[in-house]
Amino acid sequence: MILSALATSVGVNLALTVLLAAAYSLLRRRPGYVEVYAPRRPYAPLEPWLPAAWRRSEEDIHAAAGLDGVVFVRIFVFSIRVFTAAAVLGVGVLLPVNFLGNQLKEIDFTDLPNKSIDLFSVSNVQDGSNKLWLHFSAVYIITGITCYLLYHEYKYISSKRLEYFMTSKPLPQHFTVLVRAIPVSSGDSVSDAVDKYFREYHPSTYLSHAVVHQTGKLRLLLNDAENICSKLGNLKYVHRSSGDAPRKFLGLFGRNDLRDKYQKRLEDVEENVRLEQSDAIRRQEIAAAFVSFRTRYGAANAIYIRQSDNPTEWQTEHAPDPHDVYWPFFSTSFMERWIAKFVVFVASLLLILVFLLVVIFVQGLTYLEQIEKWLPFLRNILEMAVVSQLVTGYLPSVILHFVSSYVPSIMKLFSTMQGFVSVSGIERSACNKMLRFTIWTVFFANVLSGSVLGQIQIFYNPIEIPKKLAVVVPAQASFFIAYVVTSWTSITSELTQTAALFFHLWGKCAKCCKRDDSEAPSMPYHSEIPRILLFGLIGLTYFIVAPLILPFVLVYFCFGYFIFRNQLFNVYAPKYDTGGKFWPIVHNATIFSLLVTHAIAIGVFGLKKLPLASSLLLPLPVLTFLFNLFCWNRFLPIFEAYSTESLIKKDREEQSKPEMLEFFSNLVSAYRDPALKPIQRASNSDERTAPLLASI
Amino acid sequence: MILSALATSVGVNLALTVLLAAAYSLLRRRPGYVEVYAPRRPYAPLEPWLPAAWRRSEEDIHAAAGLDGVVFVRIFVFSIRVFTAAAVLGVGVLLPVNFLGNQLKEIDFTDLPNKSIDLFSVSNVQDGSNKLWLHFSAVYIITGITCYLLYHEYKYISSKRLEYFMTSKPLPQHFTVLVRAIPVSSGDSVSDAVDKYFREYHPSTYLSHAVVHQTGKLRLLLNDAENICSKLGNLKYVHRSSGDAPRKFLGLFGRNDLRDKYQKRLEDVEENVRLEQSDAIRRQEIAAAFVSFRTRYGAANAIYIRQSDNPTEWQTEHAPDPHDVYWPFFSTSFMERWIAKFVVFVASLLLILVFLLVVIFVQGLTYLEQIEKWLPFLRNILEMAVVSQLVTGYLPSVILHFVSSYVPSIMKLFSTMQGFVSVSGIERSACNKMLRFTIWTVFFANVLSGSVLGQIQIFYNPIEIPKKLAVVVPAQASFFIAYVVTSWTSITSELTQTAALFFHLWGKCAKCCKRDDSEAPSMPYHSEIPRILLFGLIGLTYFIVAPLILPFVLVYFCFGYFIFRNQLFNVYAPKYDTGGKFWPIVHNATIFSLLVTHAIAIGVFGLKKLPLASSLLLPLPVLTFLFNLFCWNRFLPIFEAYSTESLIKKDREEQSKPEMLEFFSNLVSAYRDPALKPIQRASNSDERTAPLLASI
Repeated sequence: MILSALATSVGVNLALTVLLAAAYSLLRRRPGYVEVYAPRRPYAPLEPWLPAAWRRSEEDIHAAAGLDGVVFVRIFVFSIRVFTAAAVLGVGVLLPVNFLGNQLKEIDFTDLPNKSIDLFSVSNVQDGSNKLWLHFSAVYIITGITCYLLYHEYKYISSKRLEYFMTSKPLPQHFTVLVRAIPVSSGDSVSDAVDKYFREYHPSTYLSHAVVHQTGKLRLLLNDAENICSKLGNLKYVHRSSGDAPRKFLGLFGRNDLRDKYQKRLEDVEENVRLEQSDAIRRQEIAAAFVSFRTRYGAANAIYIRQSDNPTEWQTEHAPDPHDVYWPFFSTSFMERWIAKFVVFVASLLLILVFLLVVIFVQGLTYLEQIEKWLPFLRNILEMAVVSQLVTGYLPSVILHFVSSYVPSIMKLFSTMQGFVSVSGIERSACNKMLRFTIWTVFFANVLSGSVLGQIQIFYNPIEIPKKLAVVVPAQASFFIAYVVTSWTSITSELTQTAALFFHLWGKCAKCCKRDDSEAPSMPYHSEIPRILLFGLIGLTYFIVAPLILPFVLVYFCFGYFIFRNQLFNVYAPKYDTGGKFWPIVHNATIFSLLVTHAIAIGVFGLKKLPLASSLLLPLPVLTFLFNLFCWNRFLPIFEAYSTESLIKKDREEQSKPEMLEFFSNLVSAYRDPALKPIQRASNSDERTAPLLASI
Repeated sequence: MILSALATSVGVNLALTVLLAAAYSLLRRRPGYVEVYAPRRPYAPLEPWLPAAWRRSEEDIHAAAGLDGVVFVRIFVFSIRVFTAAAVLGVGVLLPVNFLGNQLKEIDFTDLPNKSIDLFSVSNVQDGSNKLWLHFSAVYIITGITCYLLYHEYKYISSKRLEYFMTSKPLPQHFTVLVRAIPVSSGDSVSDAVDKYFREYHPSTYLSHAVVHQTGKLRLLLNDAENICSKLGNLKYVHRSSGDAPRKFLGLFGRNDLRDKYQKRLEDVEENVRLEQSDAIRRQEIAAAFVSFRTRYGAANAIYIRQSDNPTEWQTEHAPDPHDVYWPFFSTSFMERWIAKFVVFVASLLLILVFLLVVIFVQGLTYLEQIEKWLPFLRNILEMAVVSQLVTGYLPSVILHFVSSYVPSIMKLFSTMQGFVSVSGIERSACNKMLRFTIWTVFFANVLSGSVLGQIQIFYNPIEIPKKLAVVVPAQASFFIAYVVTSWTSITSELTQTAALFFHLWGKCAKCCKRDDSEAPSMPYHSEIPRILLFGLIGLTYFIVAPLILPFVLVYFCFGYFIFRNQLFNVYAPKYDTGGKFWPIVHNATIFSLLVTHAIAIGVFGLKKLPLASSLLLPLPVLTFLFNLFCWNRFLPIFEAYSTESLIKKDREEQSKPEMLEFFSNLVSAYRDPALKPIQRASNSDERTAPLLASI
């Protein structure tokens, strides 16, 4: 890539970004779009969004989006800090040094726009030059800065998490334990077994329990009921908006016939639901239960001290928030979950493999000759100009986009199969899976372009990895600079919510599909966080190799900072609060990025004939690893459990409060499967039933 | 090696074994050797040892040597079972098949004694022969049998461990927690901080605490005192045995002069000890304390629920048995221990490296030309026949023996530095280190004979490991068969206690060194267990390659079974009881052996041109790994902690027993550093002080 091409790309993307932002600024104030741009608020906000996003304090974000929202914004803050330092170092020191080198070409200031951007990369520095020690120092400095900031953030978020716990009102999940793998002697019910066990071993703190029931069939029936309800609702909506005159709908049924038919079916289904509900409560118990205690410390006791002599029975863990429980998939036995974990592990590896194969197939599409060789009978069609342009230019990216849009859902499905029982747990696990997936399919797949086997071969010989990376990573610098620049547009399109906008417009045209209950969506942390961390990885790994990328990465994070501060207020409503449990993922990913950076730097100094620098870099990954180990010991436990100190303090504070009585009486029924709650349907079925069913 | 050479070797070693056993049978009944052969008993046992060892039940062993003794014997039982099955399969099926192959030579039954034992190895089977499927099935069968037996043993020992807990009388370590990294505000004492903290957060179960003091200087003084005491004791012993006539000792001092001098010095030292003791109690507190609780469950609470908001403060862990505490080295701060761990990890890797270098140097000694090249000025001396024989034949093994005899102590020192506070913890950790060390320096160093770098290079390219192992492992079959056969002698010399015997005889001659207080030694599990596991590794890895080794391995384990059953009764007195915590090490080592076996088998079938068998073996290591993971989940927690169920049952059982009052009053002072106990010296100082000082 030459400099003028880069400038063009920057110009185009900046223009697109401004255009999108302007479109958003215009549309968001129009009442018709409130549903898309401010579903959390019933009105279109009046003030301009950018200053508003800037002015908001962290307390505001905490109030609006929970601690997870705060953590999400802190990812941008942290990244902006790291890449400000990196950009100052990179552009201020390394870039001029690289440019003034003469490994690639003689210096010639006359025709700057036509220079390749390789002149700004480390490749241009003379082999063995002492100037490379500047690069060497830069690696140490940026690692030091990043680690300091990581420590600082981890400490800050830990303290926020503790503060969040100490100031929270009594929450059911702090008093409750999920027990799985309950052994039941034949003839006994699970409920009796749980009651007997906890009365025996936790007599002073045990409060109540709620056994989980098999509700798969019930859930299908309730889904049926919901569908019929929404159809009825749509009928009424069309009815209201088109006046009272009865007319044939699509020329087939009268509206009243239809309504009667639906009403009849709804009543049938509801009768079945009632039957199934009583059946489930009577018979279909699962060997799992939510057990509530009188104190937080009592619940902690049941979690952290193994209950049974057989470690695979009476397994306890933290209960999720009642609204966060994912009811449909409730695996219980130890062996089941254990096998599922292994299967999922293999499946997610296979998914990466399959995706890489798809990428290669798609890359193959850009070469028409290849396709003609594969499918000779298509030759005539392919030689038409329109078709050939479509196939080579457009089809690949459509296929890729289509395939990759399903990946987050697949990852969520995998995590569900693993036996997580909360939406937050599933999303956190899916976030980890997506992170691995993204790093492989975007970073490594592009860096190690070639066959899948060729990609894996680099890991056959671990000692050679730095050398190989040092060769292949710089070669892709242009690609990743372009990738970062185009990502400006994609992050701004978050603002305009393109998909939601289309859905909204389509819904408006085809009025029969209009949904009354358009809830605010929840923030898809599991797909957003990995995407953001990818740019951190790209920025850090290219820090030494091609410092030109750094300002563009910095701009990306600045955009993200403002955009997501706005979106967390207006668009996304938090569905759960993990209390900042996403941060350890960010921390680990950053450490991984640093280690990859070190490997590349070691390889680069080797290639640049400065082996002493390579050797002197060796302690750096070790130190980074030790730093990470220290953070694990120092901070990770805080994200896994609260301490005796906190638990007892909090318990004592509330001991004598009168509202605790009410809390405990609510706690008894907090963990009841919503599918088992009695159906309440009034004449206006769609409005009253909807919120009831929404909780399924 | 040819068959007749093997027969000779077996004959010689069998003869030596019988000789040693006979010598033992004779010597053990002579009263003068009771100290060596039955230090645990004040008399020489009358019955023949072999039938006695055979007749003893497991209860007897438990009573005599604790659960650790039982586990130690179970290693032999388990190994005998595995290798009986392996020997039946190997000698009954694989050996004839190998011998009837004709890859190496035409069959010729005429001159059997001169056949190479390679004819019995898998190398002799025709490449690509269908008979190799027998070997293939054998790998699956032996893996299945081993895993079944592993599961069975783990289950058995787990149940023994639980039984041991449920039937134990109240023990201080079950009620006590070791707290480290205690934060102390300036001006406060550690004792006050502990008291305040546990009164605040564990008001109902907290009983008492004992702060640890810095007693390094005190310990030196007490050592001085002990030395002087034993010198005084020796003087008296010589005095008594040589009659009352005063005569010059070594012609320098009169005995009475000497005694007065020692008495004077002893009094000085004891005065210093008293000063230092009061000083230590007043000032030199360490930020660590043993905190005792009223119930076992209360102690478990303090261990398993993190105490402080800062995970690096108030760190709690199981307290060891009071007699098991290793007082001299009591590191406390989190950072200290954390850095120590890393340093020790690096140091133990370096130790393996250094040892391998020594081995190579020693192997170099067997080639005189090499030494002459290195040290040309020695040529004249080296060319003398005696010297050359000494240097090439004897020196290498002496150096190796000398160097390796220090390794277990070094490993113990490393484990001490890591911050373990109990002798049992140190020995368990040293056992793990010794295991790694033994596997590397004996198995891999011999298999991959060559330079250290060459050895490490095999791991550069992990995918090639099976192929390389399949080449190098069979090549060393003769060496390892010889190694196993010679080990018969070495395990029998355990019976004759050669080192102790020499020490005893030497002590008898040089009477001034006679020690009155010859205590029974403790079983050095950390050096014995790795040695035994090594034979399991050798046996399993050669199962496919050279089944001829199997009967010899089996004989080794049978010898060991009888010999150690005898020794645990007569020689070794248990110093601690970990409750079977050594078993997980045995389990993991066996799994590792299986995985190496699979790698070799995969490689062998590849070399033997049966790639389908190689591929069909691939699931086996995965299944073995999964089996291990299952065992980790199913059994390992039992070895780490007792369950709520057990703890509360046990607590309730004893709640109302009157003897608990006395137990609690003793518990308060159970964890007092013996160095701080007031010195009790009577006129007969050597006899009264010795037991007091022995506990240091």
